[in-house]
Amino acid sequence: MREIPFPDTAALSAARTRQALLTKPAGALGRLEDLACWFAARQGRAIPAAIVPAITVFAADHGVAARGVSAYPSEVTAQMVANFARGGAAINVLARAIDARLTVVDVGVAAPLGSLPGVVHAKVRAGTADLSVSPAMTRAEAERALAIGAEHAALDIAAGATLAIAGDMGIGNTTPSACLICALAGELPVRVVGAGTGIDDATRARKIDIVARALERARSSGPRDGVEWLAEVGGLEIAAIAGYYVEAARRGVPALVDGFIAAAAALAARAIAPRAAEWLLASHASAELGHRLALRALGLEPLVDLSLRLGEGTGAALVVPLVNAALKLHAEMATFAEAGVAGRA
Amino acid sequence: MREIPFPDTAALSAARTRQALLTKPAGALGRLEDLACWFAARQGRAIPAAIVPAITVFAADHGVAARGVSAYPSEVTAQMVANFARGGAAINVLARAIDARLTVVDVGVAAPLGSLPGVVHAKVRAGTADLSVSPAMTRAEAERALAIGAEHAALDIAAGATLAIAGDMGIGNTTPSACLICALAGELPVRVVGAGTGIDDATRARKIDIVARALERARSSGPRDGVEWLAEVGGLEIAAIAGYYVEAARRGVPALVDGFIAAAAALAARAIAPRAAEWLLASHASAELGHRLALRALGLEPLVDLSLRLGEGTGAALVVPLVNAALKLHAEMATFAEAGVAGRA
Repeated sequence: MREIPFPDTAALSAARTRQALLTKPAGALGRLEDLACWFAARQGRAIPAAIVPAITVFAADHGVAARGVSAYPSEVTAQMVANFARGGAAINVLARAIDARLTVVDVGVAAPLGSLPGVVHAKVRAGTADLSVSPAMTRAEAERALAIGAEHAALDIAAGATLAIAGDMGIGNTTPSACLICALAGELPVRVVGAGTGIDDATRARKIDIVARALERARSSGPRDGVEWLAEVGGLEIAAIAGYYVEAARRGVPALVDGFIAAAAALAARAIAPRAAEWLLASHASAELGHRLALRALGLEPLVDLSLRLGEGTGAALVVPLVNAALKLHAEMATFAEAGVAGRA
Repeated sequence: MREIPFPDTAALSAARTRQALLTKPAGALGRLEDLACWFAARQGRAIPAAIVPAITVFAADHGVAARGVSAYPSEVTAQMVANFARGGAAINVLARAIDARLTVVDVGVAAPLGSLPGVVHAKVRAGTADLSVSPAMTRAEAERALAIGAEHAALDIAAGATLAIAGDMGIGNTTPSACLICALAGELPVRVVGAGTGIDDATRARKIDIVARALERARSSGPRDGVEWLAEVGGLEIAAIAGYYVEAARRGVPALVDGFIAAAAALAARAIAPRAAEWLLASHASAELGHRLALRALGLEPLVDLSLRLGEGTGAALVVPLVNAALKLHAEMATFAEAGVAGRA
């Protein structure tokens, strides 16, 4: 197993020095300056290259959906995978807009998907068990999902990606994500459980109760590591995303974290490989309660807040042009000396 | 003088209806949904076309800069115009990134600029008078600057722009902008005057005092209209941007507002033509104190907050890909019926 590399502090210093020389008041480009320096440290060069994004969406079903925790029926997971295959979903539109390679992986959809064009079939099992009454999956199944995620990070990187994006599709997946955020960020269910795709107060109360009881069950059998938490209260696509993040970090490629489900996967990735979080960048603050808490626990500051709560990797894909703008500014702006512009009075 | 058109409420309703049919939970694309509907109303079609941006940067100097209100000397205005001409400034990089036409207009730089390639020479006067002791310019000069701005909005639109962006360059221009925001949004100097390009506390205190005294002088001679406020305490590039916004609105083309200086110009535009604000979209919340207050007074909600404080139109140019992503999602996503996806349970 290769070690996660350390960011390059010499490249970081060189990038900061360059920022101070560009023809603008010091700090006037705000977070874009930090972004350029962050990539300098990850790419190991004072002037990082423009990033090439790739997106892999992992789809799976959740036994707990039978408890009525979502506004949509489980069948929608398979239907949305078909929508991805035909190019009609939000993530398809955004992948085209940023010219990103897009892969869709069935890591555990309940329904048989037949042979949808462009969908990778890697079903670990046909949906998880109902985490409100038993572990969602076995440890071996969680490990298999992690490995599938890692494999796709490796494939995206082999295809040229220098910024890795993982998306999720899975009706009911805010419930396991809330469980993981509570378990791995030390939060209470009432703070973390939100409205998901749009549920009412009674459903939310039921969801809080399910999360609390699942955590109690999982905790009753002693301390757990990241893989065990994924098996007990996670999901197959969440485990795959966690594996994707860990592998991207091992290969020294930054990953852009999407919303609530991705943040839960990021916490699992960090539980498995603590330094994986150093290679994660938060894209947006979603409208989902608890997302900010998860990002804060990861030490990540989202770039934008557009009240998104869709998943699929959409929030991450949206900010790719902002990231590339930051890198272009860093690379292409003239310095005060080059431009013959006077410094501060 | 042509009237500012009203946004198309039928197109707005049709766009909202379409948003509810797309394959995502209702509201899951947050502000991107509102953006698509906003453009539908301005373009008068349920599915608005992708926008074509154009950027005009207006440059001018400020007599008040002699009072030491900026961290940079006035010479930097002309030097930065030369930097624009050579393509080395932040706005050049961002204009290239979004493939936008970029025009630079000298509407009042103090130094003679010679014949810089690509710079439009339309100097109304060589910098304003010092607004701390006298009106910054005459009413006729303010009207001339407004007309130059209007002319360039017309040129950008004639060249195909469907989203108009005005930028500013002018050492010292946060001082007149603060005056205008106080005058036109009913704010106090202490709330509106910020750090500009990076000044210390003593300079900020002096700047607050200058703004307060200029407002007192201007108010002592009775009530003033938008043009008079621009003449008394404004700037030539600020007046040009105000004229640009009013003309874009008259032609039914939305304008994307940049930072602090652009917000001051937007307030002046609204004072001159009240419905101009209906055609303005706020791009970002700058780090400059008072920018949010100005946007609030305009009824505008910024899309992002990246702690920018550069001007030049950079914040507006940065969010163009977000705007186009919102429009592409609206146009290209499949509906539930098209995709055969079930609705809510």
